[in-house]
Amino acid sequence: MPLEQLLEAYADRVEKALDRFLPSPDVEPVRLHAAMRYATLGGGKRIRAALVYATGEALDAKSEHLDAAAGAVELIHAFSLVHDDLPSMDDDDLRRGRPTCHRQFDEATALLAGDALQTLAFEVLASSDVDPAIIHSRLAMVKMLATASGSNGMAGGQALDIEATGQSLELEQLIGIHELKTGALIHAAVMFGALAAEEETGTVHDNLDQFGRCIGLAGSDLAANKATFPAIMGLQAARERANSLLETALASLEPLGDNGRSLADLARFIVHRHY
Amino acid sequence: MPLEQLLEAYADRVEKALDRFLPSPDVEPVRLHAAMRYATLGGGKRIRAALVYATGEALDAKSEHLDAAAGAVELIHAFSLVHDDLPSMDDDDLRRGRPTCHRQFDEATALLAGDALQTLAFEVLASSDVDPAIIHSRLAMVKMLATASGSNGMAGGQALDIEATGQSLELEQLIGIHELKTGALIHAAVMFGALAAEEETGTVHDNLDQFGRCIGLAGSDLAANKATFPAIMGLQAARERANSLLETALASLEPLGDNGRSLADLARFIVHRHY
Repeated sequence: MPLEQLLEAYADRVEKALDRFLPSPDVEPVRLHAAMRYATLGGGKRIRAALVYATGEALDAKSEHLDAAAGAVELIHAFSLVHDDLPSMDDDDLRRGRPTCHRQFDEATALLAGDALQTLAFEVLASSDVDPAIIHSRLAMVKMLATASGSNGMAGGQALDIEATGQSLELEQLIGIHELKTGALIHAAVMFGALAAEEETGTVHDNLDQFGRCIGLAGSDLAANKATFPAIMGLQAARERANSLLETALASLEPLGDNGRSLADLARFIVHRHY
Repeated sequence: MPLEQLLEAYADRVEKALDRFLPSPDVEPVRLHAAMRYATLGGGKRIRAALVYATGEALDAKSEHLDAAAGAVELIHAFSLVHDDLPSMDDDDLRRGRPTCHRQFDEATALLAGDALQTLAFEVLASSDVDPAIIHSRLAMVKMLATASGSNGMAGGQALDIEATGQSLELEQLIGIHELKTGALIHAAVMFGALAAEEETGTVHDNLDQFGRCIGLAGSDLAANKATFPAIMGLQAARERANSLLETALASLEPLGDNGRSLADLARFIVHRHY
C-alpha cells in the first residue's frame, strides 16, 4: 500500500479506537468529556499510532492489542499538547487551525482534561478485558509509557525547555531537550508495536529499539515546531544529521525483510517531511 | 498498637518508600524534581497509605508490594493537590502551612510536577522488578487507580465542582461530587491492600469493597476541606449519616475477625476526626 493510503488507514483506525476509549459526551461531567474529545479526536497525522501499527504488523501482532497500544500513545500525545498550550506554558491560542482546548473551553477544564487524558491512556492499557496471555506485555507498556511521559521523558524535556528560555544552548543540550520532549514518545510507539507482538525475538527487539531511537531523534526536531536545529547547525549539517539517523534506522530494519517495508516508508516520511 | 502510633509508623514507612520512588533532586531537570519532592514529601496524615497498609496486613500481603501500592496512591493524591491549588483552579497560596507548589516554584513547574507525579504513580506500579506472580494484581491496580483518578473519579469530581460554583445544589448532587473528588481514591486505597494480598477470597474482597465505599463517602466530606454537608443537612443529621456509614463499614470487617482491628480503628479515626 502506498504510504499516503497507509497513513490514512492507520489514522482512521486509531480515530475509531479513540472514539470508543473516550468517555461519551452525553455522560456527566459533560463539559470535561467534551473537552477531552475535542483535544483528542479529528487531529493530526497520527504518526505515533502509525508507528505502533506498522511495527506491530511487521511482527504479526494481534489487531485488537494494537488498537489499545496506539490509542494509549495518542492519548498521551493529546494530553501533552493540551497542557503545553496552557497560558502558564506556551500560551497558544491555536492548535491545528482550531482554538486550543483552554480557549475553546476554559483553563480549569483544559487542565483537568489533560490530566484525565493521561489517566485514560493508562486505563486503556490496563483495561479489564485483557487476554491473560498479554498481561505481561501490557504492564511493560504501562512502565514504558510512564517513563516516556514523566520527569525523565516528556515532562522533563518540557521543564528543561522552560529553564532554557532566553539562554543560548549548546547543540547537544538542545538535542537532549528535544529527545525528551518528543523522541521518547516516538521511541515508545515503536516499542509498543514490538511489545504487542508475542512472538518477537530478542534480536528484533534490540533492532527496533535502535530504529525507534533514531526516528525519535530525527522526529524530535520536527515535532518541536521550531526550526531551531537548522538555525544553530546550518541547514546542510541538519540535513546530513537527519539522513544519517535515517540510514541507521533503515539498516536496523533489515532482519524484518519485506515485513519492514511500511516501517521504512514511515521513517523516510518522518525524516523527510521537514528537510 | 494504639492507632496514633500505627499511623505514625505507616506514615514513616510510606515516606521512606516515596523518597526512594521520587527522582533524586540532584538529577536534571533539578527544578522539576525538587518541585515533585516538595509537593510529595513531609506532609499530611497519609490516611490513604495507612488504608493500603492496614488492609494489606489484615490479609497477610507481602510488605514490599504494599510499599508500591501505598506510594502510588499517595503520589496520585499529591498530584491532585498540586493541580487543585493552581491559579486556574482553587488559587491557593498555602498547603499544610507551607507555600503551595506554584508559589514556591512557578506555575509551569507546578503544572509539570503534577503531571509527572501522576505518571510516576503508574510507573511505580509497573516497575520492572515486579514478581511475575503479582503482575496480574499490579495491572488491576493500574486500572483501578486510573479509574479513581480520571474523568469518572477525581478529575470528574473536580470538574463538576467547578461547574457547580455559585449554584445551589441538592444534597445528593453534593455527595456525588465529594464521592468522586475524594471517596474514589480512598476506596481505591482499601482495594489496593486487598489486591496486594494474593490469598484474598471473593467474599472478603466484596466486604472490603463495601468498607472502602463507606469510608470513602464518610471521608469525602472531611477531605473536601469545606464543611458544606453540615451546613446543608444540619450538624445532627450529618453526624447520624457519618455514624451510619461507619456502622456499615465496621460490620463489613467482621469476616476478618481480629485481623481487621487496625482497619476498624482507622475507620473510626477517619469518620470521627471531624464530627
